[in-house]
Amino acid sequence: MFDFEFHNPTKIIFGRNKETLIGQILTEAGIRKVLFVYGKGSIKRSGLFERITKSLEQHAIGTIEFGGVNSNPLLSHTREGVRLAIEEDVDAVLAVGGGSVLDEAKAIAVGALGNTDVWNYFIGQEVSAALPVYSVLTLAATGSEMNGNAVVTNEETQQKYNIASPLVYPQVSILNPELTYSVPPDYTAYGAVDAIAHVIEAYFTRKSAPLLQDRLVENIITTVMETTEQILQTPDSYDARAEFMWAATLALNGITTVGVEEYSFPNHMIEHSLSAMYNIPHGAGLAIVIPAFMRWFHPRNPGPFERFATMIFGLDSADAGIEALEQWFARIQAPIRLKDVGIPAGDIEKIAANGAGLAKLWGIDATYDQAAIAEILKFAA
Amino acid sequence: MFDFEFHNPTKIIFGRNKETLIGQILTEAGIRKVLFVYGKGSIKRSGLFERITKSLEQHAIGTIEFGGVNSNPLLSHTREGVRLAIEEDVDAVLAVGGGSVLDEAKAIAVGALGNTDVWNYFIGQEVSAALPVYSVLTLAATGSEMNGNAVVTNEETQQKYNIASPLVYPQVSILNPELTYSVPPDYTAYGAVDAIAHVIEAYFTRKSAPLLQDRLVENIITTVMETTEQILQTPDSYDARAEFMWAATLALNGITTVGVEEYSFPNHMIEHSLSAMYNIPHGAGLAIVIPAFMRWFHPRNPGPFERFATMIFGLDSADAGIEALEQWFARIQAPIRLKDVGIPAGDIEKIAANGAGLAKLWGIDATYDQAAIAEILKFAA
Repeated sequence: MFDFEFHNPTKIIFGRNKETLIGQILTEAGIRKVLFVYGKGSIKRSGLFERITKSLEQHAIGTIEFGGVNSNPLLSHTREGVRLAIEEDVDAVLAVGGGSVLDEAKAIAVGALGNTDVWNYFIGQEVSAALPVYSVLTLAATGSEMNGNAVVTNEETQQKYNIASPLVYPQVSILNPELTYSVPPDYTAYGAVDAIAHVIEAYFTRKSAPLLQDRLVENIITTVMETTEQILQTPDSYDARAEFMWAATLALNGITTVGVEEYSFPNHMIEHSLSAMYNIPHGAGLAIVIPAFMRWFHPRNPGPFERFATMIFGLDSADAGIEALEQWFARIQAPIRLKDVGIPAGDIEKIAANGAGLAKLWGIDATYDQAAIAEILKFAA
Repeated sequence: MFDFEFHNPTKIIFGRNKETLIGQILTEAGIRKVLFVYGKGSIKRSGLFERITKSLEQHAIGTIEFGGVNSNPLLSHTREGVRLAIEEDVDAVLAVGGGSVLDEAKAIAVGALGNTDVWNYFIGQEVSAALPVYSVLTLAATGSEMNGNAVVTNEETQQKYNIASPLVYPQVSILNPELTYSVPPDYTAYGAVDAIAHVIEAYFTRKSAPLLQDRLVENIITTVMETTEQILQTPDSYDARAEFMWAATLALNGITTVGVEEYSFPNHMIEHSLSAMYNIPHGAGLAIVIPAFMRWFHPRNPGPFERFATMIFGLDSADAGIEALEQWFARIQAPIRLKDVGIPAGDIEKIAANGAGLAKLWGIDATYDQAAIAEILKFAA
């Protein structure tokens, strides 16, 4: 077992109607004014915006509205949020939405107390302060509700990069599975792929892992697969939505990687190029990258791939396991080839060049240089 | 999935030699003087005491030594610690030892900032303040290193009762598996039984649980059983000690019970009477109580018992699963009958009367009155 530190201070409040507690929670934390960050307005149509606003008003919490977050959040919009947070001198950032809204909210929280343009924190400057972040989650996928990560796309440079800092763990995240009933089948599928991606990155790339951790990963994958199928059948199944939601949170809250030796996130690295360059949903991009990555990588670390085939699908070869996962992605209607989202195979070198930049920033360019990324992507052609 | 809150702010630092960081950790937290709580002196013989003291001295942290904690920590000794903590005006309590040392340290932390005798917090008064607690763990079993529980025995009244408060989660717990190499086979076995007990209480007694949680419990049980057998063969196997240690932490850090509906801890309740009255090790008492409890309870909630038999032992009946667990306890040399620790069957009513007091305090006396507890214990006669 490899040495580790584990510290996840986020408080989770999980269940029906819990979003109505937000005013009380902020009041107890001494917060008097928030930047209320949200997306393209679905929370207004669903009535959630009104419920949150009412709770904030009841507790006399000042609210600066900041909607319009993209599903791949943009740096330009983040900068606007930072300006507004500073101008209005808010005490905290409240994110109401999915992973993108949370990610942009975290970036704004960092930018608001930063001493430099917020993008600098994405390209290597260490985060030294951030406003407290609170969240009400409406889409289960990214795990952002219980971790210190935030991904934003710089649309000028086509770089989709991330912050990772203990300072942006949400203080409190409210998870009400009912708020995810309206997530359509395609985004439910992308969420499933994302959650699975979060646990298999370390599972496949690690040098060693305790059995306890392998089993936890397998437990999460199996749960996500089972509940996704239930949700696609019955979108308002509370238990399926709930279990899916919590599994997605556990998938990237740090618990699955403790004691795991030398792992990396190459699928995310490559996918970030796809969504930065073509603005496709992150989970859709991952469904394309993962089977390709698996085919390229499994001869390099065969053990976990064989175990995966057996434990998840009851199959006896790595190849069969890869095939089965790809088929499952296809069955839930996720794309599995570049052409499924309209990306021409001729773009592979360009994508690989973009990916190589992030590989360098993450320090994994010895394995994942431009040539390697292109090789991987050719499996998705 | 049942509504829940999850908030576990303890930071875990895990690995070889990490105890030498203690001075730095306390300094970073602004702590200048600690009450250094430990047990019967094994940490002096092993050299751990010296390593800790050296780290504290290097950072000029004032240290008030307070050794002598019993393996079932006593109220009288706890009160001494409270007096000393107040007198010496320490900033924090540092526990170096196993679960008993941690539990007493937490109780001292509460008593030192309390406005009443510390025992009152064990019999119903809510904890409203506590000194920060830090720990270096030397025995894996109780999970106290990452939860808000503390159990102390009032030797005058023979009550082994507990505090449960978010205020006594350790700030930082250092887990170095090498420090557990010297734990002898009997205490290794008791630790295994305790860790298993922590996860099966809710697993067997709950009204409903998400599959994700059942699988996590089964993962922990399987890991504990496998690694216990490895440790009993090879006491200084780092990986086995490490995986066992982390599994025991996960077993009671709250993660296994989220979303689980209506569960209780009857095995702990009954065992507390055994160790309060006969001063036997907690894990030894649990090994006696658990099979008896399972035989009594399984007709009341058969589903989980059947699942347990299949998932843990590959067996097809609840009875066979109970038998197999009991035999496993016997194989690792844990006692499985009252007479194995010299408790006469004639004492059962007296023990049940003691247990009924705790059942009342925990609000589970409708199911576990004196007659029910006696019935359970008769299975252990």
